[in-house]
Formats: sequence, C-alpha cells, structure tokens
Amino acid sequence: MADALPITFLSDYGEEDEFAGVCRAVITQIAPDAPLVDLTHGVGRQGIRQGALALANALPFCPPGVHLAVVDPGVGTARRPVAVTTMQEGRFLVGPDNGLLWPAIERFGGAARAIDLSRSPFRLEPVSATFHGRDLFAPVAAHLAIGARLDEAGEKFEPAELTRLELPQPVVEGGRAVAHALYVDRFGNVTLDLDAEGARAASL
Amino acid sequence: MADALPITFLSDYGEEDEFAGVCRAVITQIAPDAPLVDLTHGVGRQGIRQGALALANALPFCPPGVHLAVVDPGVGTARRPVAVTTMQEGRFLVGPDNGLLWPAIERFGGAARAIDLSRSPFRLEPVSATFHGRDLFAPVAAHLAIGARLDEAGEKFEPAELTRLELPQPVVEGGRAVAHALYVDRFGNVTLDLDAEGARAASL
Amino acid sequence: MADALPITFLSDYGEEDEFAGVCRAVITQIAPDAPLVDLTHGVGRQGIRQGALALANALPFCPPGVHLAVVDPGVGTARRPVAVTTMQEGRFLVGPDNGLLWPAIERFGGAARAIDLSRSPFRLEPVSATFHGRDLFAPVAAHLAIGARLDEAGEKFEPAELTRLELPQPVVEGGRAVAHALYVDRFGNVTLDLDAEGARAASL
Repeated sequence: MADALPITFLSDYGEEDEFAGVCRAVITQIAPDAPLVDLTHGVGRQGIRQGALALANALPFCPPGVHLAVVDPGVGTARRPVAVTTMQEGRFLVGPDNGLLWPAIERFGGAARAIDLSRSPFRLEPVSATFHGRDLFAPVAAHLAIGARLDEAGEKFEPAELTRLELPQPVVEGGRAVAHALYVDRFGNVTLDLDAEGARAASL
Repeated sequence: MADALPITFLSDYGEEDEFAGVCRAVITQIAPDAPLVDLTHGVGRQGIRQGALALANALPFCPPGVHLAVVDPGVGTARRPVAVTTMQEGRFLVGPDNGLLWPAIERFGGAARAIDLSRSPFRLEPVSATFHGRDLFAPVAAHLAIGARLDEAGEKFEPAELTRLELPQPVVEGGRAVAHALYVDRFGNVTLDLDAEGARAASL
Repeated sequence: MADALPITFLSDYGEEDEFAGVCRAVITQIAPDAPLVDLTHGVGRQGIRQGALALANALPFCPPGVHLAVVDPGVGTARRPVAVTTMQEGRFLVGPDNGLLWPAIERFGGAARAIDLSRSPFRLEPVSATFHGRDLFAPVAAHLAIGARLDEAGEKFEPAELTRLELPQPVVEGGRAVAHALYVDRFGNVTLDLDAEGARAASL
C-alpha cells in the first residue's frame, strides 16, 4: 500500500476544460503514489457556498489526508491562499481563504494551525494570475501528501483570522420553523438549513 | 501490483454533485489498493435501460473484478439491493435489483449466486434513505475487492428471483426487419436492438 | 512505486456516455500499475483545434510518459492512427494523425519517430469502425506504458509526413496587433493567438 496520504479534490473547474486534469497531472508528478479522489468539479462557477457545503458533507466519508478545494473568484487578488490542519483527525485542507473551507473546518473541531501559501516554496514558478489551482494549491497538496510538514508550506498566521462562511439560519419558534433551501440537487432533493434537531424543536 | 480486485463504477449521479465522488472516497478508504475505473456517471437520471445497456456493452472490455452500478429510482423502497456473481468469469455485480444489472449478467452466462444486501454487515450506519450508493453499494463493492466472500455480504436468495430487464425486440420477418432505437449517443450514433445476425436474417 | 509510465488521456468523448470509461478499463486491464490521469473528455465534439490547444497547454505540467488523445472525426477512414515520440523528453503521443497532436509535438521539439498503428499487434480484434479509442489507441498507450518499444507498436514512417495543424496567426505591425480568439473557457477567459512577445512588439 502507498505511503502517501490520499488526496481529495473538489473545484468549480467543470469537465469541459482541462483545468482539473492539469491539477491532477501536477499532483501525479509530485505524488505518484497518493490515491487521488475527485469529489466533484461541477460546483457552479464561483459557487463558494455550494462548494463549501459539498466539501463539508463529503469529508466525513473521505479517508483522512489532504483535501484540496478550489472555488476561487478572487484568484489573483489579495485573498489569502491557505493550508489548514483541523483539530480533530489532523486533516489537511488546502484552498483559497474565502469561506470555502470553513464548514469543513468547523465539522472537524476548528483549525489547529493555518499557513499562508502566498510565497510557498512548493509553488510552481512563474505563478500565473488566474490558475492558482495548478501553480500553488495542487503542488502544496501533493507535497503534504508525501510527507511535507505544514509549516514548510508557507508562513504561519492565527487560525482565528480565517474567513468564515455566513450561512442563512433557520428560525425555530413557537412550534414553527422557517428554513432556507441551500441547494437543489440533480434529483430534485432540497437541502435545507434545518437539521433533525431543529425540526424536532419546531414540532414541540 | 495491487492484490485487490479492480472496481468499475457506473451511475446516474452526474458530475455536478459530489455523489459519485463520495462513493469513490468510501471505496478508497476501504480498498485503497483497488484500481477504480469510472465507466460513466452520465447515465440519464433514473435511466435504468440506458445504464443497463452501457454496463453490458462495457463489461467485456473491463478487467474481471467488481462492477458497481447505481441507477436506483427505487432507493429507500422495497426493491432489493444485491450482489451477484456471474456464471462465466465469476465477476461480481453490485447494485439495485431493478433490471440494471440484468443484461450484464446475461452476457456472462447468468447469475451463479445472488445475495440480498439489505442488512449487509458491510453497510455504513446509519443507512440513509436516499444514498445507498454511499452507505451500502460502495462499501460492499470495496469489501469484495479486498477479498470478502460473496456470502459474507448478506443473505442468499435464488438467482431466479432476480429482476429481468424488458427490452423491445426487433421483428425480423419475410426479409424485412423492424428495429427500435435504444439509444442515441453524443456523436449521433444510434444503437438498434437489431444485431448483425438479425440483419443477415432479414436480408435472406 | 509503479514501474509503469503515467498515461494522460484527453478526448471529446464527453461524460454522458461510457466511451472514456471503456478506454480507461482497457488501459487498466493491460497496465494496472500505470497512473492514469484524465486531462479532460469535454473537448467539443470533433473539436480538433480545441483539443490540440488543450493538449499542448497541459503537457508541460504532465509527468513525462504516454499522452493519449482522441478527437477523431475521421475514425474509420484513411486517416492514419499514430504513435510518436518527441525530440525533447522522449514523450509518447498516441492518437489520430489529424493535427490534434501537432502543437504538443512542436512544443517538445518536433517528432523524433513516428509509427503507423493501422495494423498494430496491440490492437483489440475485431477493430470496430467507430471506436478506435477502445480498440487501437488505448491498448497501444497501455502497452507503451508497460515498456513496449515504439517500433513494436506498428510500422515506421517519416515524421515529416505528420499532419500539421493550421492555426490563425496574429498580425503585428506598426505598433498594432490583430489577434484571434482561439478559445473561450468556462470562466470567460479568452485565449488569443497573441503571446507576450507579440504584444510587446505591438507596443513598440
């Protein structure tokens, strides 16, 4: 069995272009033994919330390892590219710090450590202005999978500075609930922001 | 080379959502050494016939192993989740018993053994009502790939009880043939239910 | 780590049908240890130019190995199926000789050797008229990945006979440039045929 950690990969790159494929190629070149699992590349263009929910829902079913996620409308601007480890299970999350990683981080007990990747020694030079998936995030994810330590990937910063994702909240009051539809999937299933506990509370 | 059997995977989960990806993640966690080949996840939603034909056409070109297929409009109802071995080559087929697996089973000489997976010890608890791919079929496929015996996966039943797929039949008579278009692919190729033998008969 | 060379795979097969998946299955059966990277299967149907540009842009980020590319409107006609090695890095390119491979070949210094695969001993018999990806290109790519020599794959011909791809050329003159949009991606980025050097020339 491979010594490298498994890598999962989620993005809004779609299937029409070679973007996701080029990131896979970069990973394969650096970490040929790391099992690579595509979660999906069909997140709506720049759909941070959709991607964040898909990632958080998928992660409990993913083997612990490196979780690469790229939905990045701010690529090329001042938003921080980051790598994070979670308090529980020590999972690595790699992607833009725009809220995309936040629900997944919360699901695993918060962030233990956070690294700014802007000047990561693992980046591919020259780093393009529009394709940090290929030039920055994929190589960092691959190096972590083959054993690099988190603090080798860039500069530490306070996990408290990480960008949180604002989600609508259901209102449960007086035996009634008002919930929001967060997402409608291919089969017509609607994901609400009301969980089983909230629903029970509403029916009291 | 890996000791685990290869797993092929076909579904109607699409590429937009993370459903196929989560199943891949579950498989990778249980059977990290099993080569995993996505046949397609683009079967039309709940297109049992389309999926069944794609699976049967693909299987002769697939390495013998475990063949996971999920097109499952009846998920959460009484339809039986099954694992089957074929008479020829002893291939494992895993999926819902709604006809999806039938043409592939026929192509390999029929079913040698059949197992009801409803209470499989390999299932992930709690089993959801809507995502048996993740909670039931993927883990069973993965355990078979790493060496579990078929009868460890659930309860035996008579292969004769398996659901057959009704397909239209061409009419070949008096030197004429009336065939049905089963499927039109991306390139405009039309798959008929008339094979070469039938066409020759019609031209006599 | 695997001894087999990595294989990248690009096509216009789409994700709806099982075509790309069947090719992956054929490769896995012959070369189970070869890392297999899907670059994209979303090239527009029979979009030779789009596929050629995607391939040439992706290759510098791909590990050296075998690069399978199938966009093949002439399948079943007299166009030549080929395998080529590049002057630089000795990369293998496998696909139809219709210009698809040309920009990638140029990017790696031209073709060192070229082989006609029409009667390759590696082909799957009977070779269909419409699915050379499965019956010819995938098995050749897989055999090259596990160590077959190029000249075992078919009959040599002069690399100078390879089909070139005609692309529009930008006009840079008198401090002005007229460029052509070659491709518009999912995010609205436009690829021009004007590179940085041409743009600088125009601003002189």
